[in-house]
Amino acid sequence: MKPVIALDAMGGDRAPAEIVAGGVRAAAELDVNILLVGRPDALAPHLPNGVAPPGVEVLAASEVIAMDDEPATAVRTKKDSSLVRCARAVKEGRAHAMVGAGNTGATMAAALLGMGRIRGVHRPAIAVPLPVFGMDRAQLLIDGGATVDPQPGWLVEWAMLGREYARVRLGVAEPTVGLLSNGEEPGKGDALRKAAAPLLSEVKGWVGNVEGRDLLRQSADVILTDGFTGNVALKTVEGALAGLAGLVFGVLDEPAFASVADALKLRMLEAAAPLLPDSTGGALLLGVNGVCVISHGASSATAIVNAVRVARDCVAAGVIVSRALPPAMLGTIEMVSLSFTGVASLPR
Amino acid sequence: MKPVIALDAMGGDRAPAEIVAGGVRAAAELDVNILLVGRPDALAPHLPNGVAPPGVEVLAASEVIAMDDEPATAVRTKKDSSLVRCARAVKEGRAHAMVGAGNTGATMAAALLGMGRIRGVHRPAIAVPLPVFGMDRAQLLIDGGATVDPQPGWLVEWAMLGREYARVRLGVAEPTVGLLSNGEEPGKGDALRKAAAPLLSEVKGWVGNVEGRDLLRQSADVILTDGFTGNVALKTVEGALAGLAGLVFGVLDEPAFASVADALKLRMLEAAAPLLPDSTGGALLLGVNGVCVISHGASSATAIVNAVRVARDCVAAGVIVSRALPPAMLGTIEMVSLSFTGVASLPR
Repeated sequence: MKPVIALDAMGGDRAPAEIVAGGVRAAAELDVNILLVGRPDALAPHLPNGVAPPGVEVLAASEVIAMDDEPATAVRTKKDSSLVRCARAVKEGRAHAMVGAGNTGATMAAALLGMGRIRGVHRPAIAVPLPVFGMDRAQLLIDGGATVDPQPGWLVEWAMLGREYARVRLGVAEPTVGLLSNGEEPGKGDALRKAAAPLLSEVKGWVGNVEGRDLLRQSADVILTDGFTGNVALKTVEGALAGLAGLVFGVLDEPAFASVADALKLRMLEAAAPLLPDSTGGALLLGVNGVCVISHGASSATAIVNAVRVARDCVAAGVIVSRALPPAMLGTIEMVSLSFTGVASLPR
Repeated sequence: MKPVIALDAMGGDRAPAEIVAGGVRAAAELDVNILLVGRPDALAPHLPNGVAPPGVEVLAASEVIAMDDEPATAVRTKKDSSLVRCARAVKEGRAHAMVGAGNTGATMAAALLGMGRIRGVHRPAIAVPLPVFGMDRAQLLIDGGATVDPQPGWLVEWAMLGREYARVRLGVAEPTVGLLSNGEEPGKGDALRKAAAPLLSEVKGWVGNVEGRDLLRQSADVILTDGFTGNVALKTVEGALAGLAGLVFGVLDEPAFASVADALKLRMLEAAAPLLPDSTGGALLLGVNGVCVISHGASSATAIVNAVRVARDCVAAGVIVSRALPPAMLGTIEMVSLSFTGVASLPR
């Protein structure tokens, strides 16, 4: 039985065209079935001959949640939106996982509403894969923006969830865990970091504080931070890389280098491909009781294929933590077990 | 009368050689006198013929504060350290300003102890100049790491100090002010940002929230954040740029591009020069009642010359805010006035 991935076909800057194209490709390439959720009249023009190909099924949803809709309100009022329908499809066992490239806050809200939280996890977090320069691997930054004012203990919950996910996503048997801080030395940090570090030191794989310059480097497999700092750091990386890339290409455009400019640009784009958001394959929403992968807003068809692949792998590996975290976590922290939840009895 | 700049000759990874060389160059090039503070036996080998040239005077200090010394303790116990002597030289009117490339925390502590805080400013902040891609200008990130847990109102104080400094440093008549947040929309942010934004909206030049990707771009002249997030963002920029530069140079090292590699590397280094920390010229410590410029730890002689230039310009422009901020600031925010303080009666 192939896993079924519900895809919010109406979400993202390039929806529905690129999302539909990605869904069709994913069904053909990834050994999954795709539930394409959206307005049938909007999807049809992007389907081959206007018809869903084998492995793709359209699930009608009449409403659309826009990128700038207020998340909680949108999810509450637009019951027949593609996003809410995606989450419900997972809840009702019609799909194993959902993938969305639209309004991130609304995707989170819909996933929480539809799938619920894992017992023992206080708040969700977004696990964003970051490429590691010069290596064919990634690291996970948690939280990329779900929970901006976490309590120190919540970072411990995310650390445990993140390690489980890192095993699947990064293929590392014992993922290391670091805390993003303003210095490597123990004791550095603001109030949140100072309170969180001693708790995190009980987590397996703990390597201590890491710094901003340790992002995109071989430092820790899982790097923890609050959703505010995580979001700032991610967008800072994005801006710095785009700026320097522009500078480099500007030099290549100078007349002196005209003979090699095209070849060099091509080769540099190739070398930098792992850095592009389309390659990384989406972020997993940790803490919801089901698999929800969030792809970036400008997702192309390729980004969607990669996000579906992540969702498929998470389903296959059972990356849903269903057992509650121990109530008295500190001192008794163990790895939480993994098991499938709510996806046992699918219609196909 | 030339301004006198006290230089901590023992502070920094490349001290004393590069610091002394920078001080000697600054005295020759910048129309300033340099008070070179440190162990005479350590400085002499780096002075021409072992003697201080015209415009340079050595002030003996027997102790050194190391990069990893605990700042407050070091400043309290090492009374005869080069750093503490620098701050005292400013306090006693022997110098107009101090420049240090050593232990940042200790430099701050020494400056606070020696010069005191400006009345009405609750905590200091580090104003770090960031280059703006593709433009011959900079922006100021405040705070780069001085105060990791600020209260919302402190950001308003920094905004006002930062605007005054931006006038001198950036040559902008009416600097714009933004708040680093996790979204541009009003209302985005964690608790600190949500509380600070309404207060900052009363500050002249306010443009609203900016995001991580607005760093190093033409967004706002002064970008405010807490010292924790600021430090993470700065180091994230550093790591991302270094990583991508490595990737680009790696491609240029491929055999196919051997014929143009050297010329391209040279040209790229030239184009990227404004991005290098040595070019930016040090960060001003805002909120202390005197001019204290903090240069980066790996400062070369060139970095020191640029940092001395910043200190000189600050002295010339009178960038010390001596009038207390109004006690009931909100609603009545005006630009604070500038005046020289404590540097009126210098011995030369």
